[in-house]
Amino acid sequence: MRIQPLHNFVLVKRLESERKNIADVLVAGFAIEKTNQGTVIAASAGTKLKNGSLRPLDVKIGDNILFGKHVGQQVKVDDDEFLIMREDEIVAVLEA
Amino acid sequence: MRIQPLHNFVLVKRLESERKNIADVLVAGFAIEKTNQGTVIAASAGTKLKNGSLRPLDVKIGDNILFGKHVGQQVKVDDDEFLIMREDEIVAVLEA
Amino acid sequence: MRIQPLHNFVLVKRLESERKNIADVLVAGFAIEKTNQGTVIAASAGTKLKNGSLRPLDVKIGDNILFGKHVGQQVKVDDDEFLIMREDEIVAVLEA
Amino acid sequence: MRIQPLHNFVLVKRLESERKNIADVLVAGFAIEKTNQGTVIAASAGTKLKNGSLRPLDVKIGDNILFGKHVGQQVKVDDDEFLIMREDEIVAVLEA
Amino acid sequence: MRIQPLHNFVLVKRLESERKNIADVLVAGFAIEKTNQGTVIAASAGTKLKNGSLRPLDVKIGDNILFGKHVGQQVKVDDDEFLIMREDEIVAVLEA
Amino acid sequence: MRIQPLHNFVLVKRLESERKNIADVLVAGFAIEKTNQGTVIAASAGTKLKNGSLRPLDVKIGDNILFGKHVGQQVKVDDDEFLIMREDEIVAVLEA
Amino acid sequence: MRIQPLHNFVLVKRLESERKNIADVLVAGFAIEKTNQGTVIAASAGTKLKNGSLRPLDVKIGDNILFGKHVGQQVKVDDDEFLIMREDEIVAVLEA
Repeated sequence: MRIQPLHNFVLVKRLESERKNIADVLVAGFAIEKTNQGTVIAASAGTKLKNGSLRPLDVKIGDNILFGKHVGQQVKVDDDEFLIMREDEIVAVLEA
Repeated sequence: MRIQPLHNFVLVKRLESERKNIADVLVAGFAIEKTNQGTVIAASAGTKLKNGSLRPLDVKIGDNILFGKHVGQQVKVDDDEFLIMREDEIVAVLEA
Repeated sequence: MRIQPLHNFVLVKRLESERKNIADVLVAGFAIEKTNQGTVIAASAGTKLKNGSLRPLDVKIGDNILFGKHVGQQVKVDDDEFLIMREDEIVAVLEA
Repeated sequence: MRIQPLHNFVLVKRLESERKNIADVLVAGFAIEKTNQGTVIAASAGTKLKNGSLRPLDVKIGDNILFGKHVGQQVKVDDDEFLIMREDEIVAVLEA
Repeated sequence: MRIQPLHNFVLVKRLESERKNIADVLVAGFAIEKTNQGTVIAASAGTKLKNGSLRPLDVKIGDNILFGKHVGQQVKVDDDEFLIMREDEIVAVLEA
Repeated sequence: MRIQPLHNFVLVKRLESERKNIADVLVAGFAIEKTNQGTVIAASAGTKLKNGSLRPLDVKIGDNILFGKHVGQQVKVDDDEFLIMREDEIVAVLEA
Repeated sequence: MRIQPLHNFVLVKRLESERKNIADVLVAGFAIEKTNQGTVIAASAGTKLKNGSLRPLDVKIGDNILFGKHVGQQVKVDDDEFLIMREDEIVAVLEA
């Protein structure tokens, strides 16, 4: 199934990182930590401007991005969980 | 009865999926799970712009769409339940 | 008494439907159910735009309409109860 | 004392109606019922637009008007009580 | 000390009126009643518009004005108490 | 260290006044009273307008100003405490 | 890993200062005090304006800045903690 976001929506797969420190795992109760990073899985073709033209988004599929703590909301497509966020909430692109 | 949405309203029939896992059914207490997906049942002819022209919506009847967790509100028409949402709250079109 | 709405206000008589199912009546405690539908009783001549011209409303007297759950507020004129709502809160026109 | 409203303010004398039904009086504890209707006592000369011109209000002194339940706030001038409201909160003009 | 308000601010000396009715004094516990009226003590030269020009205010020093119940906030200059409010919150000018 | 405010920010040193009345000191528990007045310590060069030009602020360094009760927030630079506020929240300039 | 902020986002490393006063340490329970100052670690290339052009930010990498108490939110990149804030929330640049 292909997901084609509308408006300025972006679908993001959140990066989970393994806690390497056993003490951290004990404190948190989870071995997997949710990060503020993720990968763009799908992005709209652009934001429709008032004059009808399309402003391309500043992120593209495959970008690794940084986002704020309370940004985005979870959706489930088939059995995958994603975060939906609007492009203007994305803080930065992370370049390797 | 034909439903003709106004402004940028869209009428959506939410997709319900059967829980296939007996454990999930026991935890949730329901065999039917409400998803973040649905089908566009009716859509307005477009959003009226300030200059009087009509901007067509980005979704059309029959589209399978993805929407956020707290988006839309329920209405009952005859005995069917629908979700009303505004087009700019629809996250993505799902293509088979 | 004639009611002439101003701005984009619309006066609506809410449709009440009789619960046909005795079980529903017992659960709700009322034989009459308030619906999300109604009939336009009075509507303004249009919304005054910034340039002074009038944009006609998308609904007219007699239209059967659909509206959201928490839309509109009650007013009493003589001994009739109506809902006041703004035209941009009306979701759809219902056509027989 | 003459009251000259500014901006889009309107001064309204709320209509009180006598409860005719003795049961209603007993339930409410008051023989006088506050209605959603009133008479325009004073109105501004118009709303000043951004270009400096004046847009006349849609109501005038003496108009009987309908307003929403929580619209307006009370002021006391000399010993009279009035409601202050902005013209865009007035729902309708009532014509005899 | 001269007070020169900026933007659309207006400094108002609230009118206090003596309660003449002994019963009112007993109920309120104060012989002085705060009214919704006051006198303009100082006003800005006008609101700066986006194009740089100045829109003169609709009130001037010495005007007796009417304002809403929760409008304005108290400031103390030297030992005098005033209300600060923005011109667009002033409801009306009272003319003798 | 020089503080160069950005946008329409202004740094203000709040004026504290000594309570001269011993009764006031006893009631308040403090001999020093925080006033709604202060001195502009630093101000931005102006607000950047949408067309790129700079609108100079209406206050300058050294101005004694009046501000509302809940305006501004405290910051500490080195060991001095200041109030940060936006120029459009400043109510008036006080001239000796 | 290079962090390239988007829109008007700025990444800031908050300045922590050592409490030099033993009494302050005892009261606060921490020897390290979080300040309202920080250093710009990464900044977007500029804010995209509606006409498509780019307005450069008023801060650049390496700037020491002052920000309000509740501004910014924490993110963790690798094992470093940063504050994300929007450029229009930055109060001032501090020049040595």
